[in-house]
Amino acid sequence: MRRLVLLRHGQSQWNLENRFTGWTDVALSEHGREEARKAGELMLKAGILPEVAFTSYLRRAISTLWIVLEAVDRQWIPVRNDWHLNERHYGALQGLNKADTAAKYGDSQVHEWRRGFDVLPPLLTPDDPRFPGHDPRYKTLTRDELPLAESLQDTIARVRCCWEEYIVPSLANASTVLVAAHGNSLRGLVMMIRHLTAQEIVDVEMPTGKPWVFTLDERLEVTENFYL
Amino acid sequence: MRRLVLLRHGQSQWNLENRFTGWTDVALSEHGREEARKAGELMLKAGILPEVAFTSYLRRAISTLWIVLEAVDRQWIPVRNDWHLNERHYGALQGLNKADTAAKYGDSQVHEWRRGFDVLPPLLTPDDPRFPGHDPRYKTLTRDELPLAESLQDTIARVRCCWEEYIVPSLANASTVLVAAHGNSLRGLVMMIRHLTAQEIVDVEMPTGKPWVFTLDERLEVTENFYL
Repeated sequence: MRRLVLLRHGQSQWNLENRFTGWTDVALSEHGREEARKAGELMLKAGILPEVAFTSYLRRAISTLWIVLEAVDRQWIPVRNDWHLNERHYGALQGLNKADTAAKYGDSQVHEWRRGFDVLPPLLTPDDPRFPGHDPRYKTLTRDELPLAESLQDTIARVRCCWEEYIVPSLANASTVLVAAHGNSLRGLVMMIRHLTAQEIVDVEMPTGKPWVFTLDERLEVTENFYL
Repeated sequence: MRRLVLLRHGQSQWNLENRFTGWTDVALSEHGREEARKAGELMLKAGILPEVAFTSYLRRAISTLWIVLEAVDRQWIPVRNDWHLNERHYGALQGLNKADTAAKYGDSQVHEWRRGFDVLPPLLTPDDPRFPGHDPRYKTLTRDELPLAESLQDTIARVRCCWEEYIVPSLANASTVLVAAHGNSLRGLVMMIRHLTAQEIVDVEMPTGKPWVFTLDERLEVTENFYL
């Protein structure tokens, strides 16, 4: 039996402040750390112990993973950090308060930016300090890989790279694989494993800090799925 | 410039209780966590930021590494967990109080077990719960790799596998490599990079939680070394 466990990071400081976060590297809030501890306890109790784990380059996801691995006594398993699992890049919206943005641009524009499948938020310019090309952790990325902003579609396209190159092969060797990441990068994984359409994936909501367990057959088709 | 930074884990619960630990997976004490935070702050202040890190399968070393990576804002770098970097296996001494053991076997016997280069402590039997063959994290090890006890020489021989296969290649691609491990596995690395004899390495003492920085030339010869 193969299991893929998807875990959205706990509450971050900017979730709390209702700001667009994207690739901004914001830490977990104390409540977010508590959510992660609880996720770990649920996994331990259910005997769902990961043998391999994946996470993004962003500390809110990495810290969530580390807290879980400590709780399930699996700090020693291999972990791959992969920028392809980062949150969707929100371009020039990053850092803005969501309510202020809605007041300025109107609810329907903000709704479109947030919920359109192929809608780009306003782009950064490459000289903007928020452009990832200025951050040493992304120095190996090509110019094409460095986003000025992303639609959900763009995000899912890059998540596919990590899925095909690393997660699928790991599912051949490990019985339980954990991915601790972000709302939109996890949407990408859910879209692929459940064969959802663009409209369907936009409507999938995933709570923070709740392990979502998918049981897969040998062709990686989902046979069962449940939240812990 | 290449830098190798060696960091011995902070105080563990059993250091505090003066017990032989070896492969027993004991957590850091609160003081040990504080030592790790301090090590991270020293590295950050010195601008010594690792690009790759290595650690053992034991939580006192892994937690030390994670606390450091959080302090230096490098949670996203690749980390290899490798059992070859575990502490020396102390065989049937694991769990015993060091003072009680000295009272029972005599100071000179205990000194020989602790400080002889090729002296084996009393062996475990494979049915002993302390034998690593019972622990799922070591399930990929061969029977020959699973120790019943180790001399310092045995420990250093296996550390060499990780050094040659993973750490040396990583020094070709990264300018700063961090190894967070244990007194005796780090002795192995020091012996190799400084070309020490068995007698010399036995006398090397390494404080907990102090980053030891080695600057290396292109042939990996040490040009400078200092503690932060």
